[in-house]
Amino acid sequence: MVTPDGKRRRSMPRKIDLVILDFDGVVTDNRVWTDQDGREMVAAYRSDSPRIGELRKQGIEVMILSSEPNTVVAARAKKMGVEAIHGVGMQDKGRVMREVLERKNIKAENVVYVGNDLNDLPCFEVAGWSVAVADAFPEVIQAADYVLSKSGGHGAVRELCELILKKL
Amino acid sequence: MVTPDGKRRRSMPRKIDLVILDFDGVVTDNRVWTDQDGREMVAAYRSDSPRIGELRKQGIEVMILSSEPNTVVAARAKKMGVEAIHGVGMQDKGRVMREVLERKNIKAENVVYVGNDLNDLPCFEVAGWSVAVADAFPEVIQAADYVLSKSGGHGAVRELCELILKKL
Amino acid sequence: MVTPDGKRRRSMPRKIDLVILDFDGVVTDNRVWTDQDGREMVAAYRSDSPRIGELRKQGIEVMILSSEPNTVVAARAKKMGVEAIHGVGMQDKGRVMREVLERKNIKAENVVYVGNDLNDLPCFEVAGWSVAVADAFPEVIQAADYVLSKSGGHGAVRELCELILKKL
Amino acid sequence: MVTPDGKRRRSMPRKIDLVILDFDGVVTDNRVWTDQDGREMVAAYRSDSPRIGELRKQGIEVMILSSEPNTVVAARAKKMGVEAIHGVGMQDKGRVMREVLERKNIKAENVVYVGNDLNDLPCFEVAGWSVAVADAFPEVIQAADYVLSKSGGHGAVRELCELILKKL
Repeated sequence: MVTPDGKRRRSMPRKIDLVILDFDGVVTDNRVWTDQDGREMVAAYRSDSPRIGELRKQGIEVMILSSEPNTVVAARAKKMGVEAIHGVGMQDKGRVMREVLERKNIKAENVVYVGNDLNDLPCFEVAGWSVAVADAFPEVIQAADYVLSKSGGHGAVRELCELILKKL
Repeated sequence: MVTPDGKRRRSMPRKIDLVILDFDGVVTDNRVWTDQDGREMVAAYRSDSPRIGELRKQGIEVMILSSEPNTVVAARAKKMGVEAIHGVGMQDKGRVMREVLERKNIKAENVVYVGNDLNDLPCFEVAGWSVAVADAFPEVIQAADYVLSKSGGHGAVRELCELILKKL
Repeated sequence: MVTPDGKRRRSMPRKIDLVILDFDGVVTDNRVWTDQDGREMVAAYRSDSPRIGELRKQGIEVMILSSEPNTVVAARAKKMGVEAIHGVGMQDKGRVMREVLERKNIKAENVVYVGNDLNDLPCFEVAGWSVAVADAFPEVIQAADYVLSKSGGHGAVRELCELILKKL
Repeated sequence: MVTPDGKRRRSMPRKIDLVILDFDGVVTDNRVWTDQDGREMVAAYRSDSPRIGELRKQGIEVMILSSEPNTVVAARAKKMGVEAIHGVGMQDKGRVMREVLERKNIKAENVVYVGNDLNDLPCFEVAGWSVAVADAFPEVIQAADYVLSKSGGHGAVRELCELILKKL
């Protein structure tokens, strides 16, 4: 598909081996609660996890890749039952993503990446299908193959899972 | 009543012995706050509890039935003054609900169930009256006998209590 | 003033000695965050306190009166620099308010009460001027002398303070 | 530029040495979460920090100036990688700002100040360019040289950073 802006938007790959989720703004609403000792808390969406579980039953791996160093990323990933790599340098997400695919021996064309902010753009270039949440930043909406109707932390991940489950 | 989609939507039972509430997305807004140690927090609505208290004065029992294993469910239920069963497997809510009714010796036709997500559908089939919150998922809205005007964690439970209290 | 519904809505008293605020739904957004140990947290509005401070400089006392037993009420009141009475039985707010006025030797006609829920109605009957937040329950909106344009926890208290400060 | 209200709104200074941010209502959504022991938590926006980092790479210093005494200000500032002065008396922000500029040897005309509430107005008078968040109070919107399209804690700081970065 070629859009009016001349960008070719790819459709969902026939075979999906891995879904990589950015954390802040995708799994969460892009906000962070900070207490007076600097301890952090984020807000996620309860109905994302059950659908992630169904994807995994279908043999599709799900993982989180985040620049954020705080262990709140790992804590939420653990509850969601998915692997997380976090604390990745802002400029390095694309490189780390490529290393992950090599290590897991997964072809980039069979990978879906979901993001919301500028540091996700290098991952969009690697992924077989790049997806933006509804409230992603303009440059990310523009670069994405697909834009979800739900916002981060408010059902975006679930919406993506259902989209994939329907095509299986 | 038969709706355009051919589904027969039942009206509120004349006699109600028990109201069963799903937790996440009904008592709460379906979000979870997670801190960096994985400790969880949820957001509930202060004005639900007083009306639940009035239902109970009228001899109508209220309880919470949830798939969520975290003890945040029990903690909130305790403050609301209602029994809670939680950590029920995603597929098992219907079965557990039937066991509860048997143990309490309550007829299913005198039970109201309020839910928001797919794992509530088996309970909808058991209950005498199935109710969806305003922001329930489409399949749940479709399956419900009644859809509240308020969302989960923002007055849905209170709205249901008032609906029942008016009919007493 | 007599409204179409025949209710006489009184205007702001010329002399105000005391402003009594309900807590949940007035100082807060009527939600409560609960953690897995049952510890509670509420969300208040930073810009309420400075204006409360100005009222007090003008000799107008401000206090909180709440049915809620949790000490989160006292904790927030302390930060706001106002007295709080909380844990008052749901049915007893009117009686406790009268006792407060007697103890402080303040005439009811010089008292403003701000509420959002049914248990505030007995206080509306005592107060010289009864005020509802924008998102109060319908019965409370109906019974109030004045309805604020802001919601609880989102500037309602500040709006009231400015209203009073303008008339001084 | 002279607006219909006769106020001359200045445009962004050609040279910017320092951006001073108010905290509550600019870095946060102007709400505070309080627990039952009075411990405080605020909600900030994850996507502000990366853009602040880019400003600093361009040699523009960013700092926080707040009346709020709670150390939650310092805790969030530390994570954002910026200096914070907080606990400043409500009436003293203008004076403290002038002292900061003197100490840092920065000319007021090269300083941008972002605020939302009345105690920010003295800083608006000092700054070379005064900026209000979208949900600032009416008097602040009125006094500002520029009004952002985003609200505090929801991208206002990022929007300002991008505005500045585009002009460099």
